[in-house]
Amino acid sequence: MSHNTFGHLFRVTTFGESHGPAIGCVVDGCPPGVPLPTETIQAALDRRRPGTSRFVTQRQEADAVRVLSGVFEDERTDGPRTTGTPIALLIENTDQRSRDYAEIRDTYRPGHADYAYDAKYGLRDYRGGGRSSARETACRVAAGAVASAVLDHLYDGAVRIRGGLVAMGPHEIDRSRVDWDTAADNPFWCPDPLAAQDWEGLLDSARKSGDSLGALIEITASGLPAGLGAPVYGKLDAELAGALMSINAAKGVEIGEGMAAARLSGTANADEMRSGDGGPSFLSNHAGGVMGGISTGQDLVARVAIKPTSSILTPRRTVKADGTETEVVTKGRHDPCVGIRGVPVAEAMVACVLADQALRHRAQTGRLGAAG
Amino acid sequence: MSHNTFGHLFRVTTFGESHGPAIGCVVDGCPPGVPLPTETIQAALDRRRPGTSRFVTQRQEADAVRVLSGVFEDERTDGPRTTGTPIALLIENTDQRSRDYAEIRDTYRPGHADYAYDAKYGLRDYRGGGRSSARETACRVAAGAVASAVLDHLYDGAVRIRGGLVAMGPHEIDRSRVDWDTAADNPFWCPDPLAAQDWEGLLDSARKSGDSLGALIEITASGLPAGLGAPVYGKLDAELAGALMSINAAKGVEIGEGMAAARLSGTANADEMRSGDGGPSFLSNHAGGVMGGISTGQDLVARVAIKPTSSILTPRRTVKADGTETEVVTKGRHDPCVGIRGVPVAEAMVACVLADQALRHRAQTGRLGAAG
Amino acid sequence: MSHNTFGHLFRVTTFGESHGPAIGCVVDGCPPGVPLPTETIQAALDRRRPGTSRFVTQRQEADAVRVLSGVFEDERTDGPRTTGTPIALLIENTDQRSRDYAEIRDTYRPGHADYAYDAKYGLRDYRGGGRSSARETACRVAAGAVASAVLDHLYDGAVRIRGGLVAMGPHEIDRSRVDWDTAADNPFWCPDPLAAQDWEGLLDSARKSGDSLGALIEITASGLPAGLGAPVYGKLDAELAGALMSINAAKGVEIGEGMAAARLSGTANADEMRSGDGGPSFLSNHAGGVMGGISTGQDLVARVAIKPTSSILTPRRTVKADGTETEVVTKGRHDPCVGIRGVPVAEAMVACVLADQALRHRAQTGRLGAAG
Amino acid sequence: MSHNTFGHLFRVTTFGESHGPAIGCVVDGCPPGVPLPTETIQAALDRRRPGTSRFVTQRQEADAVRVLSGVFEDERTDGPRTTGTPIALLIENTDQRSRDYAEIRDTYRPGHADYAYDAKYGLRDYRGGGRSSARETACRVAAGAVASAVLDHLYDGAVRIRGGLVAMGPHEIDRSRVDWDTAADNPFWCPDPLAAQDWEGLLDSARKSGDSLGALIEITASGLPAGLGAPVYGKLDAELAGALMSINAAKGVEIGEGMAAARLSGTANADEMRSGDGGPSFLSNHAGGVMGGISTGQDLVARVAIKPTSSILTPRRTVKADGTETEVVTKGRHDPCVGIRGVPVAEAMVACVLADQALRHRAQTGRLGAAG
Repeated sequence: MSHNTFGHLFRVTTFGESHGPAIGCVVDGCPPGVPLPTETIQAALDRRRPGTSRFVTQRQEADAVRVLSGVFEDERTDGPRTTGTPIALLIENTDQRSRDYAEIRDTYRPGHADYAYDAKYGLRDYRGGGRSSARETACRVAAGAVASAVLDHLYDGAVRIRGGLVAMGPHEIDRSRVDWDTAADNPFWCPDPLAAQDWEGLLDSARKSGDSLGALIEITASGLPAGLGAPVYGKLDAELAGALMSINAAKGVEIGEGMAAARLSGTANADEMRSGDGGPSFLSNHAGGVMGGISTGQDLVARVAIKPTSSILTPRRTVKADGTETEVVTKGRHDPCVGIRGVPVAEAMVACVLADQALRHRAQTGRLGAAG
Repeated sequence: MSHNTFGHLFRVTTFGESHGPAIGCVVDGCPPGVPLPTETIQAALDRRRPGTSRFVTQRQEADAVRVLSGVFEDERTDGPRTTGTPIALLIENTDQRSRDYAEIRDTYRPGHADYAYDAKYGLRDYRGGGRSSARETACRVAAGAVASAVLDHLYDGAVRIRGGLVAMGPHEIDRSRVDWDTAADNPFWCPDPLAAQDWEGLLDSARKSGDSLGALIEITASGLPAGLGAPVYGKLDAELAGALMSINAAKGVEIGEGMAAARLSGTANADEMRSGDGGPSFLSNHAGGVMGGISTGQDLVARVAIKPTSSILTPRRTVKADGTETEVVTKGRHDPCVGIRGVPVAEAMVACVLADQALRHRAQTGRLGAAG
Repeated sequence: MSHNTFGHLFRVTTFGESHGPAIGCVVDGCPPGVPLPTETIQAALDRRRPGTSRFVTQRQEADAVRVLSGVFEDERTDGPRTTGTPIALLIENTDQRSRDYAEIRDTYRPGHADYAYDAKYGLRDYRGGGRSSARETACRVAAGAVASAVLDHLYDGAVRIRGGLVAMGPHEIDRSRVDWDTAADNPFWCPDPLAAQDWEGLLDSARKSGDSLGALIEITASGLPAGLGAPVYGKLDAELAGALMSINAAKGVEIGEGMAAARLSGTANADEMRSGDGGPSFLSNHAGGVMGGISTGQDLVARVAIKPTSSILTPRRTVKADGTETEVVTKGRHDPCVGIRGVPVAEAMVACVLADQALRHRAQTGRLGAAG
Repeated sequence: MSHNTFGHLFRVTTFGESHGPAIGCVVDGCPPGVPLPTETIQAALDRRRPGTSRFVTQRQEADAVRVLSGVFEDERTDGPRTTGTPIALLIENTDQRSRDYAEIRDTYRPGHADYAYDAKYGLRDYRGGGRSSARETACRVAAGAVASAVLDHLYDGAVRIRGGLVAMGPHEIDRSRVDWDTAADNPFWCPDPLAAQDWEGLLDSARKSGDSLGALIEITASGLPAGLGAPVYGKLDAELAGALMSINAAKGVEIGEGMAAARLSGTANADEMRSGDGGPSFLSNHAGGVMGGISTGQDLVARVAIKPTSSILTPRRTVKADGTETEVVTKGRHDPCVGIRGVPVAEAMVACVLADQALRHRAQTGRLGAAG
């Protein structure tokens, strides 16, 4: 992970500011021959797009993606495929309202990157958050769609990544009611349909009072082989932690038992093993699918805590760049709970990490999964 | 972070297995001219060394470090200094008991990397955990001592990194009693002296019953300038998360409010700002010192949850490499709470991340801290 | 240097195929505050543009660059400056003639990458050479313009990079006539005006006979400080060699005496030193400005040999993808001597290497040049 | 290639100074299961060892290698094999004569890195050249032995890398007499036995007159599959150029026709193709086995020019660190032609590049060679 690049062999470099002409990314290291119609990428972007429910920002962005390179349709074959060369994806910014940016330019919004960016660079594109805007995450979702296509190609569709909110503010789901197949039916990708109903009122109320709510995202990847990951510093869980913590507003990351593992005893935390068809099976999954930094073949389970949106209508005390003390309210079309649109972003980051680890594993061992 | 290398400009590569001839690391990218007596590194290793209290493993390892390169004492100067070339540090393994490894070779210990390593590589050095042994963390501590020397050199001693246990099993410290100056006085580096007393009995009791306990480590870095970090993928918090999650037995990582941020409202979570001497000051530190991936100048606050030691005397069900079902107890000289010796390791990882980010910041901006 | 990325701290990732919708690059790691009007980049592209003389391809490409990100004009300042975030540059392909690509698809052109790409990837965008087309070098030139702006900013304009042809086919320049100030006055950037006149007829004649010519490019960088480079693997000369050899059609690279150094004796090759104003001075420059991988402050001198264009009208024997033997002539609008348009590309690569090394040197030492 | 690390997936990090306690390297990314007895590495080191003939330095170094990690002999298998974890190799320095280093400390030797290192770092380990000593190349040879074992494992012994001197000073071999099987029979690894005889007197005479000679090394790799390499920046030839130019005293690098390609016409330079058994065959190899940065399956042919040893007994004018002008002769046990011992180093660099490219190719395509 360097400044704006993510991954080692499946490498994603993103660019673009919220109110510049365009955002985009370059995906390098993709295997050749992966079917990749533009519609696949567009469909992923549409899941994250603003304006899909009243619970997300009403900014109007089509988020129409152009594939500029790395994908080619040979007239003798059946649709566009990757060629192994870098895939550039471009999304023009269309909703750049002409307005006065003097306030946002001069006043540091609490919880935002304004002050930190100024401290680092001495100047910044202050329009709409610039580079630190959540708008950048559209590029991650586009790259994640490529990563998912790679995983489908490598594992014949066996790997499935699913995410949703399992808590909003202090309200957690009831694990006994979880049905992931219902997650797409509500605006929160919440796998507990009853909780999802409650959350509508909860979030309406927060928004009306000029406030916002945090959320907890859970991502599960099933169908993974044992063997992905690497010892010591390229650990699968370490890279997932870095990837998920790099999402805007993330403050905590858990694998399997997560923070709760600190409270357990060794006897309670052991994932005992039995002999199953086609290899060992586990009697529990406290580990969340990773041991010693390497996948075990169990479901990968990760969670990321997203702080409440910092852009709120309740006045907060702050200072200006010149040191003057003031108060600020952040008007505009903001997500009352950024965790919601964080779900496809977190799924995309997991897909990118897995595609990268699959290629790294293949490089070193010549296999895509466990030794036989 | 690639397989066995950590960092971008301050780069640490570690090597070695638990029962091989030696372990060690190469630190590359260190600035020239940093005072680095061997005693500095040895002192750091002594903090993590086995056998320092009854609460850690009784394995007998001197952990004596040899500096093989990259440090030179010009007869005209005042002690050894780094030359800017790679610093190789070597620690011979001295306590390699001759014993029969057939059981550990053939039986997968629940919670250990045995099965995952076999799945990945098809073979492994099974003696004492081999590469996945916590013994590797001695190298991290040695590298961390170099990183701390670099930070001292760059920031004239202003940056101070301190860590300790803030929970053991289900027992948390009382925040009102915290005094970090007392943390070195008890075997848990616990900043709450009364909690530390209670934990002695708690851990004795777990060990006697053949069990183990998890723990929560908190690391604070004070004296940091604003401006360290990078946008999007090289975020300071993302790299800390990856670094801390790469520690053996880590299952969760938090920055500032951490997982609790998910439960807050935007008004409660805002770190309001006022004008102070020498720049803005903050009225709270929910962010844990990082906004938009860049340090704000407030204290950096991170926590990592360490699962209970998987090596326990209580029998657990498992399978052998050939598929046979069996039970296993892990005899030997194990830490009843690996979180304890994890403290200097976590401090070292934070030091490495900060040294790396300081050099990256200097590369891009020509400064070590905030603009202005 | 990984697949499509060049550099460590000043990192350039290029994308795009010859006949796809667009080509472009992302420049990451650029310092903030560097003045970067779009015209600067466009002017560099115009030097490499097709159709500027009868000696280069007549393909019609405007090569108009769009700056998509990373540059911002604060209304309080004096023109666009870099912000420290990734700079994305986009060039639309406009001259994509609709034609039949069946022949180029099925027949391997000798000297081209057609066969090698098919062997590697199993499929390729065969239109106009696709990714292996020299069209990619427009992105290098655009990135090189950014690198030059960075060098100007860091060194107050002291560093000057100049290149030109010093041989075309078997005809070398006369070193006694060299005047670099005249190089821009002829279509070959040749510093020997008389040789340039002779080459016009030479190249006309080669082209008319359906043939092409190789060339030797020389690049000089003056005004460099001593101290740039790194020991062992990040050597300045090693990175220049890799960068220059990565240019399409390059087959050899020299620093200073180059291949001729093999024929010298140690007494003849020594660059003796005397004491000068402001530090040591050298009595000769056999080394070409680099010793031990680090710049000495003398002029950096590098040469790269460019093979003759492989696209020629003289029939050459070859095979088709299906194994059938055939003959091929490569029609189209080709450069009779690709070395000519290679000059701005080679200058750009040198600028990128120097900007990268300057930032790496600053990271490690806190300085931009020699220790004082 | 960063400071002291070479390669992307097969990564070599070297450390150590000429007169420090030890030198060594860490090889990361090696596939598991590769047979690697210590004797294999030792045999490679013995080829490069000082004191093997009167034409190389008489320094007495056993260069005995210790394998510290990453190789394991399971008692159920047939000899030591790699485990996929980092392989650390250590060579103690044994011939560190106690002497006065004041002169070398204060006086810059022409042609050496002394001045450049001081300019960069402000201090250096000046004993025997320190980090810039050719002693570091022992680590490259050790790593190259691992790379060769990897290539043998991946390609069942088909890939063969051979090198030797093809010119010494102004004296070139006669290509009509070349028999590579005789290269090991003379102290120059020269494939022309008659030239080798002449060179003995030539080099004796240079040494006796206090002078030294340059040399030209040629390396050939046969048995390579088509398909290794990568487009644009990870080109096989570009990485070879960087690797070979990173060898101490290298000043020029050629692939295939090399610098001579500049003098050819397109018709003469074309490698025409015919249909052969098992794929296309080429009628010539001007390209040296690489087109578009990717191997074609023909022999890879590279050359590197090594300047004459800078350590000579003939006095040369120079300056001291304090600016005083002086003369220097470099006494000691030096190679009269460093190109000789450069041969195993160049072979090792080629082996490392090929192992790295093979793993990268396998990562992206799942294959080790050409599509088919």
